[in-house]
Amino acid sequence: MIIDCHGHYTTAPKALQDYRDAQIAALKDPAQPPYDGKISISDDQIRESLEGAQLKLQRERGTDVTIFSPRASAMAHHIGDATTSLNWSKHCNDLIHRVCTLYPGNFVGVCQLPQSPGVPPQNVMEELVRCVNELGFIGCNLNPDPSGGHWTAPPLIDKYWYPVYEKMVELDVPAMVHVSSSCNPVFHATGAHYINADTTAFMQFIQGDLFKDFPTLRFIIPHGGGAVPFHWGRYRGLAQDMKRPTLEEHLLKNVFFDTCVYHLPGIELLLKVVPVDNILFGSEMVGAVRGIDPRTGQYYDDTKKYLDALPLSESDRYKLFEGNARRVYPRIAKKLKV
Amino acid sequence: MIIDCHGHYTTAPKALQDYRDAQIAALKDPAQPPYDGKISISDDQIRESLEGAQLKLQRERGTDVTIFSPRASAMAHHIGDATTSLNWSKHCNDLIHRVCTLYPGNFVGVCQLPQSPGVPPQNVMEELVRCVNELGFIGCNLNPDPSGGHWTAPPLIDKYWYPVYEKMVELDVPAMVHVSSSCNPVFHATGAHYINADTTAFMQFIQGDLFKDFPTLRFIIPHGGGAVPFHWGRYRGLAQDMKRPTLEEHLLKNVFFDTCVYHLPGIELLLKVVPVDNILFGSEMVGAVRGIDPRTGQYYDDTKKYLDALPLSESDRYKLFEGNARRVYPRIAKKLKV
Repeated sequence: MIIDCHGHYTTAPKALQDYRDAQIAALKDPAQPPYDGKISISDDQIRESLEGAQLKLQRERGTDVTIFSPRASAMAHHIGDATTSLNWSKHCNDLIHRVCTLYPGNFVGVCQLPQSPGVPPQNVMEELVRCVNELGFIGCNLNPDPSGGHWTAPPLIDKYWYPVYEKMVELDVPAMVHVSSSCNPVFHATGAHYINADTTAFMQFIQGDLFKDFPTLRFIIPHGGGAVPFHWGRYRGLAQDMKRPTLEEHLLKNVFFDTCVYHLPGIELLLKVVPVDNILFGSEMVGAVRGIDPRTGQYYDDTKKYLDALPLSESDRYKLFEGNARRVYPRIAKKLKV
Repeated sequence: MIIDCHGHYTTAPKALQDYRDAQIAALKDPAQPPYDGKISISDDQIRESLEGAQLKLQRERGTDVTIFSPRASAMAHHIGDATTSLNWSKHCNDLIHRVCTLYPGNFVGVCQLPQSPGVPPQNVMEELVRCVNELGFIGCNLNPDPSGGHWTAPPLIDKYWYPVYEKMVELDVPAMVHVSSSCNPVFHATGAHYINADTTAFMQFIQGDLFKDFPTLRFIIPHGGGAVPFHWGRYRGLAQDMKRPTLEEHLLKNVFFDTCVYHLPGIELLLKVVPVDNILFGSEMVGAVRGIDPRTGQYYDDTKKYLDALPLSESDRYKLFEGNARRVYPRIAKKLKV
């Protein structure tokens, strides 16, 4: 079985965006109460939105199931307030639930959290619990920067975040560290903000002792870990200069990278420096890069092709494509019925 | 000749930091005028600060000359105002000039700019001109985020920065894109902020058309280009999706990376994906990582060893270690007298 740990519903029917547009429009008029209209999307519209996109690509690329969450760039926690974010998150998560119900063999849900800048993360717990216990989701996306590029929240190792971690541990679900769009013009979302957040989170984990406090807490750092594998020597050296334990001891029981790196040399490096136990197959499709690489004739984000080109042992292939995902997202077993 | 394009005076005599401490202390008392005391450092103290550090390492590692600038993390443009920054920059640059005068064969100067958050970059010009025309410096370090981790300045492709670029072109000097320390607790300076800034700058250059307006403007993105080479496919794909020209056409005549990547697999990747014409040997020594890698028994930042381990042609070695630096920093020829 091939599990893609990183997919977003970037192709949702237009009615979802219409809702969001109305919600944002209402924010502009302080006289209006918070908008919370209904969204009318039929099952057929959901099928149509997936058949020509994620499902087609799953078939073409030979992957089986995608760990699927709402469109990351559209979370936009910086828009409005906690109510805005809660209403929007619920709709986005409900839609993921409908996808997973229509295609239980193809998609397993991960939720967006109703974060909001300056609002303590306790606020997200009810929706996290609802998604896991009622909708059968197996993880969440945690945004380390709900301000959207202004980076006003404390570091992930700060006790500020501990209530969420306690709940994640209790529910036995991991979080993918995933920012959303950037409202700071210096940061292009998928080309800078996403990658910076990955790098930033990893360095925070080096600085702190989070996994002493939460030995079973698990994070997936997407996009191959940002800059981290390319600078693996730098991070090993920084940890050493800072008298931290080795990366293996300090955080590699708790921190995992996906394979959303869109060229063979990058994937080769990732597999060369990061232990295979810490890498989960992911493609981020349909996502940041949608084109075909003229040098290879293949989609940039068809990351399975890069992995298939490597001389991996059967045991390593199993870990990458299935075993590690089952270990990091243990609730997936119940969803896959095996 | 082996030119290290990236060295900072991280070992300056204590009197420099004493000055800075007094300057910062004066800021805390609004009744005091801006501090601008004198700094008393003897030539012998300068020699002593270098002999056991940068000069020793140059000899041990077999490098000849370092393109040398003030300590990057100490620029701290976010502290005080434009006057604070101007006084501090002048002292730091003057000290680099003394180093270069004492050891003309070992060091060539690059200046810190007196940037300050919210102050238009026109303000740095006088010091840039002084450093180039009077002190014989061959380039500058340009901080894309003078706020120190709050990222409040416009992107580097914004016309806001054009006056500096016009002057750089007129003087024929490049800039290394280099942030300073971070006063935002989410960003570790050398482990997150530096690398993020590199990645951010590259993506901005993809988004803009800066090099149409300034065909001869040149930037060095340090730390191997941040996350960029690891995600080379992502950047090629993003440029393509955005209907930009190829990276080669769009920015590789103007943007260069150093080799401050502290392990062999990272350096291998860099050389595999980035054209050799765009890579300048650099070590950042004595800098971010000071320890010895127990796996190799060598200093993490002895990047020459990684390059020496690669099967490079003589022509490529020349470009990496000397030729590209001469092309990007043309004023170096006059300093080296050859």
